[in-house]
Amino acid sequence: MSDVRSKLEGVSVATLTTALFKRGFRNQVIAGVRPLPGGPVRVVGPAFTVRTIPAREDKATAAVLADRNYPQRAAIEAAPAGSVLVMDSRQDARAASGGDILMARLQARGVAGFITDGGMRDCPDIAALNFPVFQSAPAPSISLTHHLAVDTQVPIACGGVAVFPGDMIVGDADGLVVIPAEITDDVAEEAAEMTSYEAFVLDEVKGGASIFGLYPATDESRQRYQDWKSRAKS
Amino acid sequence: MSDVRSKLEGVSVATLTTALFKRGFRNQVIAGVRPLPGGPVRVVGPAFTVRTIPAREDKATAAVLADRNYPQRAAIEAAPAGSVLVMDSRQDARAASGGDILMARLQARGVAGFITDGGMRDCPDIAALNFPVFQSAPAPSISLTHHLAVDTQVPIACGGVAVFPGDMIVGDADGLVVIPAEITDDVAEEAAEMTSYEAFVLDEVKGGASIFGLYPATDESRQRYQDWKSRAKS
Amino acid sequence: MSDVRSKLEGVSVATLTTALFKRGFRNQVIAGVRPLPGGPVRVVGPAFTVRTIPAREDKATAAVLADRNYPQRAAIEAAPAGSVLVMDSRQDARAASGGDILMARLQARGVAGFITDGGMRDCPDIAALNFPVFQSAPAPSISLTHHLAVDTQVPIACGGVAVFPGDMIVGDADGLVVIPAEITDDVAEEAAEMTSYEAFVLDEVKGGASIFGLYPATDESRQRYQDWKSRAKS
Amino acid sequence: MSDVRSKLEGVSVATLTTALFKRGFRNQVIAGVRPLPGGPVRVVGPAFTVRTIPAREDKATAAVLADRNYPQRAAIEAAPAGSVLVMDSRQDARAASGGDILMARLQARGVAGFITDGGMRDCPDIAALNFPVFQSAPAPSISLTHHLAVDTQVPIACGGVAVFPGDMIVGDADGLVVIPAEITDDVAEEAAEMTSYEAFVLDEVKGGASIFGLYPATDESRQRYQDWKSRAKS
Amino acid sequence: MSDVRSKLEGVSVATLTTALFKRGFRNQVIAGVRPLPGGPVRVVGPAFTVRTIPAREDKATAAVLADRNYPQRAAIEAAPAGSVLVMDSRQDARAASGGDILMARLQARGVAGFITDGGMRDCPDIAALNFPVFQSAPAPSISLTHHLAVDTQVPIACGGVAVFPGDMIVGDADGLVVIPAEITDDVAEEAAEMTSYEAFVLDEVKGGASIFGLYPATDESRQRYQDWKSRAKS
Amino acid sequence: MSDVRSKLEGVSVATLTTALFKRGFRNQVIAGVRPLPGGPVRVVGPAFTVRTIPAREDKATAAVLADRNYPQRAAIEAAPAGSVLVMDSRQDARAASGGDILMARLQARGVAGFITDGGMRDCPDIAALNFPVFQSAPAPSISLTHHLAVDTQVPIACGGVAVFPGDMIVGDADGLVVIPAEITDDVAEEAAEMTSYEAFVLDEVKGGASIFGLYPATDESRQRYQDWKSRAKS
Repeated sequence: MSDVRSKLEGVSVATLTTALFKRGFRNQVIAGVRPLPGGPVRVVGPAFTVRTIPAREDKATAAVLADRNYPQRAAIEAAPAGSVLVMDSRQDARAASGGDILMARLQARGVAGFITDGGMRDCPDIAALNFPVFQSAPAPSISLTHHLAVDTQVPIACGGVAVFPGDMIVGDADGLVVIPAEITDDVAEEAAEMTSYEAFVLDEVKGGASIFGLYPATDESRQRYQDWKSRAKS
Repeated sequence: MSDVRSKLEGVSVATLTTALFKRGFRNQVIAGVRPLPGGPVRVVGPAFTVRTIPAREDKATAAVLADRNYPQRAAIEAAPAGSVLVMDSRQDARAASGGDILMARLQARGVAGFITDGGMRDCPDIAALNFPVFQSAPAPSISLTHHLAVDTQVPIACGGVAVFPGDMIVGDADGLVVIPAEITDDVAEEAAEMTSYEAFVLDEVKGGASIFGLYPATDESRQRYQDWKSRAKS
Repeated sequence: MSDVRSKLEGVSVATLTTALFKRGFRNQVIAGVRPLPGGPVRVVGPAFTVRTIPAREDKATAAVLADRNYPQRAAIEAAPAGSVLVMDSRQDARAASGGDILMARLQARGVAGFITDGGMRDCPDIAALNFPVFQSAPAPSISLTHHLAVDTQVPIACGGVAVFPGDMIVGDADGLVVIPAEITDDVAEEAAEMTSYEAFVLDEVKGGASIFGLYPATDESRQRYQDWKSRAKS
Repeated sequence: MSDVRSKLEGVSVATLTTALFKRGFRNQVIAGVRPLPGGPVRVVGPAFTVRTIPAREDKATAAVLADRNYPQRAAIEAAPAGSVLVMDSRQDARAASGGDILMARLQARGVAGFITDGGMRDCPDIAALNFPVFQSAPAPSISLTHHLAVDTQVPIACGGVAVFPGDMIVGDADGLVVIPAEITDDVAEEAAEMTSYEAFVLDEVKGGASIFGLYPATDESRQRYQDWKSRAKS
Repeated sequence: MSDVRSKLEGVSVATLTTALFKRGFRNQVIAGVRPLPGGPVRVVGPAFTVRTIPAREDKATAAVLADRNYPQRAAIEAAPAGSVLVMDSRQDARAASGGDILMARLQARGVAGFITDGGMRDCPDIAALNFPVFQSAPAPSISLTHHLAVDTQVPIACGGVAVFPGDMIVGDADGLVVIPAEITDDVAEEAAEMTSYEAFVLDEVKGGASIFGLYPATDESRQRYQDWKSRAKS
Repeated sequence: MSDVRSKLEGVSVATLTTALFKRGFRNQVIAGVRPLPGGPVRVVGPAFTVRTIPAREDKATAAVLADRNYPQRAAIEAAPAGSVLVMDSRQDARAASGGDILMARLQARGVAGFITDGGMRDCPDIAALNFPVFQSAPAPSISLTHHLAVDTQVPIACGGVAVFPGDMIVGDADGLVVIPAEITDDVAEEAAEMTSYEAFVLDEVKGGASIFGLYPATDESRQRYQDWKSRAKS
């Protein structure tokens, strides 16, 4: 994993969507979810999933939070170090998916990040932790007003995208992409190569080159790219 | 069950929400879901649930439909007679949650109805079956463009409401209400009584009575109601 | 009033918007609000307004419904015969703006119709009353889950349009238009004339005429229209 | 064309989306657009397109309607008999895309139908014409409050779908599908065959058959289908 | 008031929603409204309310802005020092609820802050004032294109929440909460205590403690908290 | 042009909407589009337009990007220095309207800025270019998943506003306004004058003046403004 992870840490979400598009995947970007303002903007890791449904008044009571088996709380203690906890909050940011204490615990446990297609409370305090959290909007209300967690480690929807446990999550300032576990190595490899070529293109374009014949690549531009790489190395 | 069912068949979804409100339940109406135009408008039965996530191109292929374990298809054969199949389609009517053939099969098996917070294809053909189907909008596209079924008989979200397997579903022209299984008898009892009182009120109001002192009830109006009931019986 | 009312009963909401557009009014159609299915589709009358705000749990209790001064209930008894009760429900159809008993009372009192930019419960029962009700969607939940009435006879928003008490409301199958009280006579006059001309145009078009030179009118077409009117009378 | 047209008149929009899905097309259903209540629900024909942009007060004046070159009006006289006029109204139903007079003219000229992803005024009058019109919602306001037509016969967006002039439009009660012109024959052929098979399936299912082994088809079920067809013919 | 205010200045909106939830209030967070980027993020004070309706062309003219009784302008001069001006803009950010000059005047008058569920113009200039302003989105258009102020000091809706004049408003980076006037003291007291306990929890969690047995509190954790508080004081 | 441009660089979008409102233009602000976070917030220049429609799988392939005539790419090389490239992305931010390489090329060519009512990929890299880009939300997905460019230099819709080639675009932190080409000089002149007066007003208000008699201006306040201007010059 470490080689894949290091490749993924060096590529953008945008480039990954292009590699996925070439493989027929058109819907792998988690819609409307972005890094918490002031917090870190990069995250990489396999998904550990939590599923919620709408709260019901008789079940979503303060008592549930003390239950060690309540999935929202259980997941905080169960997600492995290096994983990314992904919560299906049904794109509902009327109540919090989590707050600073839960995030501090995930961080202490070595979890790589937290993602919800709902919202977070205590946003500035979370940003101060320097722990990667992605959400749709601040949501100060206590989670129980709208969310009841019911499952962990099942396939979920998050921001309109299917997320299976173990799928690779990559996030940056643009948002989040979900890479199916089966093709993560392959996609990481291609994206790393594309990233290098795009650095060359940007260099050329800033120097006055037209995008035509350069982006997308041609045989001639690929040759020039090889020369550029050689020069960069020497 | 049969007594409860017969009570529920005689009351409206509106009246049931009032009985639920009195018990602290404020969010039991499935939002945006209504009977198929031209089809039957009443349904009563315990929920049998199906859960979907967004389709992913490598998994949501035509092949899956031939798999006897694919939850959308398995549920069609597994939902018991008298139950109501409720599908969590994530309020997404961009693709069908089902069509006329699946509905005909449910009907043949004695299932009481089908509910989705997405949409249906073959709407006029379904209406012609005279089988209760509730949805948000017609959705002709094949389900696999947006939906992948992943579970049956788990707690789900449907139209912004929590639905647990076994919860009682009641539908009429106004829409659908979900009654928590634990309180179904009690709610049915109260709603039946309220329905009788409201018939009396409507009778009075059509005869020129003011709503004040009558709706909500007072001691005096309850007495007149008892008299009205006695007269109705004799 | 009776002459204006009779003119307005013979013209369409569409034609009235054209007359208003010519006078600089571009936003007089109540958005997303239409006649209850199965109920009458025409309404004409001056607005009697009710204003609501979101419900708060301590104030929106069943007790409030028994209070003769509660604006939702007070308005039912106060709106004059011939008026149209218009309720600002903040385009929120998560809970009912009213139901069959209140509508039956309005009808008994001679009120001309009821309009909300929220929703109604007991929709089929209301439709059976043959009383004009316009709404955005069925809403079975008891009003108190989302609405608290706070005022009557103040300027309100309804479906994104300003409604002042006394403004003339006209509704048909297309929806509802609000005519500022100050210009009702003038607009009614022009719309009646336009309606007559459009009947002539439709006659011509069905007979094979092109729309050019006819719609909009030219001097020549106006002459032919006069002839057509003369023939119609004789 | 006539053979293709007759095939398309016998198949549903739902079945066509399945044939398109098999060819890699996932987004060919015009979102949120349906037949006018009370009007005809079937339409088939090649698209003749009109494009609009938001109205601007200095350009969208009553004068423009008298201009023979104004694209909304020019298209009414230019769309060929048998074509379907498709208007890109930017999914904006705040103002009308057309009304009864324009529809009567299209009908007189032999045009097959009218489609907008906005709304229509004079809806009951249009329904009475018995001319196929598809829209998202009634929209009584004069078109000039929000729409300015700028082009005909260019590629457009309609209900979130690309429509190129000449693409085949098929509509029924479920909505509308756009078939790329290049593959219309092929798709029509396959959909006609599927329709026949599905009639067999529905027959079997109503007789008590399970969907497994039948829908989707297997070798065995295809054989039974052939027998069923033979019986039907004899 | 000053003791309550000082307590409220030390607690978060998130914590206040929890204290309100315990008292049965589930809908007190103003939806979609947040501090202006670059401006101060804290506000505390009792609400002074302004109500708007949609603009109508004949009434929403430049002349109205010169009228000392026009509620938008009158409120600017009437809101007491220390109050928070809260404007019901019907969640419509198509036109401004205010701009830099009005905000500068409020600031000069000692008003504590300005809140709208619409948008603001001159956003960077307002941020430079260092005056707390909360809104949903920048809205450069002059207010009269969409808003007409009609009332001050009446109960209003703001961001889907009921706001009564005198209700306590507290805002931070997460957003805004409305505390019913009747319970402000009690809620402030409890929230201050919770805030202290949560600081202890965060301390423990950062030191490696599990959330179980700590958050929510247990008898044992409350004892440790008391010890922690004693240590902190000494 | 240079005089107009310099005037427009000194005025705000807010002030320009007021000058447009006075001339009867109520809908010239591009809705929901704002400067990229971290990038420059000011742009001025005449519009060069690009139009897109929804992607179709057979046409929106990687191959199209290599076609020198593909309008998205052709526009990058064709927009004149000083112009603002404005893309009609149908308010769809599910896929990118552009990324860092295309923006770098526009910058190298001297184009003044880029605007889309969709979203952008590579947002932090674009911000680092110090080139003015306005969008609705980050959109990492490759453009071809949702967009197909079809035209340049035609009238378009952008953020609900009509944009004709050559219309003057002015952007700041509040958003963007479109000034019809025919009245740009006149509007720039008035806005410059208003800006000066508003600086005087702000000065007065910060010094304790009431807004009444000052904003809007009166004869007396205009006189004081002249004095203030004289003092400022001396």
